[in-house]
Amino acid sequence: MATNRAWRLESRPTGEPSMENFELVETEVPEPGAHEVLVRTLYMSVDPYMRGRMRDAESYAEPWDVGETMKAGVVGEVEESNHPDFDAGDVVTSDLLWADYAVAEGRDLRKVNPTHGPISTAVGVLGMPGVTAYFGTTDVAEPTPGDTVVVSAAAGAVGSVVGQIAALSGCHVVGIAGADEKVEWLESVGFDAGINYKEEDVPSALREACPDGIDVYFDNVGGPITDAAWPLLNVRARVAICGQISLYNETEIPTGPRKLGKLIESRAHVEGLLVRDYEDRWGEALHRLSVWVANGDVEYRENVVEGLENAPDAFLGLFEGTKIGKQLVQVGERSG
Amino acid sequence: MATNRAWRLESRPTGEPSMENFELVETEVPEPGAHEVLVRTLYMSVDPYMRGRMRDAESYAEPWDVGETMKAGVVGEVEESNHPDFDAGDVVTSDLLWADYAVAEGRDLRKVNPTHGPISTAVGVLGMPGVTAYFGTTDVAEPTPGDTVVVSAAAGAVGSVVGQIAALSGCHVVGIAGADEKVEWLESVGFDAGINYKEEDVPSALREACPDGIDVYFDNVGGPITDAAWPLLNVRARVAICGQISLYNETEIPTGPRKLGKLIESRAHVEGLLVRDYEDRWGEALHRLSVWVANGDVEYRENVVEGLENAPDAFLGLFEGTKIGKQLVQVGERSG
Repeated sequence: MATNRAWRLESRPTGEPSMENFELVETEVPEPGAHEVLVRTLYMSVDPYMRGRMRDAESYAEPWDVGETMKAGVVGEVEESNHPDFDAGDVVTSDLLWADYAVAEGRDLRKVNPTHGPISTAVGVLGMPGVTAYFGTTDVAEPTPGDTVVVSAAAGAVGSVVGQIAALSGCHVVGIAGADEKVEWLESVGFDAGINYKEEDVPSALREACPDGIDVYFDNVGGPITDAAWPLLNVRARVAICGQISLYNETEIPTGPRKLGKLIESRAHVEGLLVRDYEDRWGEALHRLSVWVANGDVEYRENVVEGLENAPDAFLGLFEGTKIGKQLVQVGERSG
Repeated sequence: MATNRAWRLESRPTGEPSMENFELVETEVPEPGAHEVLVRTLYMSVDPYMRGRMRDAESYAEPWDVGETMKAGVVGEVEESNHPDFDAGDVVTSDLLWADYAVAEGRDLRKVNPTHGPISTAVGVLGMPGVTAYFGTTDVAEPTPGDTVVVSAAAGAVGSVVGQIAALSGCHVVGIAGADEKVEWLESVGFDAGINYKEEDVPSALREACPDGIDVYFDNVGGPITDAAWPLLNVRARVAICGQISLYNETEIPTGPRKLGKLIESRAHVEGLLVRDYEDRWGEALHRLSVWVANGDVEYRENVVEGLENAPDAFLGLFEGTKIGKQLVQVGERSG
């Protein structure tokens, strides 16, 4: 039988993570027990929140132990099933492992519906990032027609969907991203304007792109980009805090301009968002998103790195911000 | 006829305001025109938000012009009325002037009901600060029984009412204030615990006073006290931003630890609050508050400085934080 490769957390990073923090080990392919299923990884997702799990500190995601195989959203094929709902060859998705194979309880797996789109989307636009964008927009940001909506990390897996849903909602949508190519893509999928924060002065570019101020700020990055958006918040603005990737590698408590006083003037709502709060409504989001994807209302991009051995590279690339759309690692091919 | 004294903004303060920024001038007593009423000031309120109006910058309160007579919440007696709803001798309240006399449109005056309590309360517990506390608690902070509620500037005109309403709501209430005498008073009016931030280490005192974390943080001060409360916010906590007095005298953009990341973990709501948004519901708040005051459920303290000439002193004292309860200036006595 094939061997199984798995990425373990070798050490906790200080500041920027590096290859040294990861160790690839070979193990035996695990055996599924009662009610369990053996899944062979086809696609593995790398996401910014994983940086929090590498840290030995309380966070919204439980920290990984050093020496532990790291977890990831996976789309895989059932190799062997001891659960009546699954057969060999089924395509499934779940939180599994940075590994070729993983064993899971049948109840923790979700079947991927291949009529919804390429199976890789089950960890992208039709998976955690898309569902995050959906509820972050509909339930937290609550855009209404005519609102000016600003999205940071707008070309990312979450931000790109947020902006497109806001555009469908009749909003003026401004995306902030880190490359001209990203800005062009955003403008081609319904964003009204894009700002390349690596080339432009963000405060003045935002003032120009948002002549009526900001009604919704959907934040994936934190830091100076958020500082630039803050003074433009309108009365009763909504701020959805989804991620703070610019701060995840900080080694000291990051400081910046104090922001709470502005909330008195604007009576803005600021609210943090975790997609796991919406587990009961996952089906609602998937239904809406799959219709939008099918009819072209929501477009998506994927950046696929080949080979499990390159998974840490794909993860580290998230902090360079050079890629468009969902970052994936292709680990295997479908059989048959 | 008596002369009229009025305090004008002589110059804009840089940092801490001082007597130099105020000028007392003598003018003629103004004449009421059609539909207007001449009001003689009995009590004048000084409030932290006035610091914002001394600044030449956009804020939630319009800036005063240099040379302009400053505005204040006033309880006064009608001297002369050209409006059918008011007669000489009536006690009224409105946003009037730092002056012995002011003229106002009748429609801008509210009659003070003397059965509700001492007339001075019309600019205190039964006026703007009490109404701010009421809506900030019921509509923004939304405490539910069993919640741990932390209030900063808890012995102030707003904070003391917030804490007592939270106690009535079945909450565990912790007040932060700047003197042992204040802490003793808070504990005597229903707060479960008080912290003297000038004597105690606030982060550790808060951890001790809030063993189950913080469900509601009602912020009147900002700065390091708010920094100490932030890490203790529970899942779905509510933060009401009512004031940031610790920052009002800053000459540069104040900086501090970045706070938005914590909101992802806690999915807390943060919302700013301005009482003028609740003008339509003022009567609701006054009714509730006057019942609570009458039956002793809500107690209040006033600190009265005698004489219009001492109004700037009373205002400057707000930033020293040495006084308990509502800061008032008694300018005149009721006639007859």
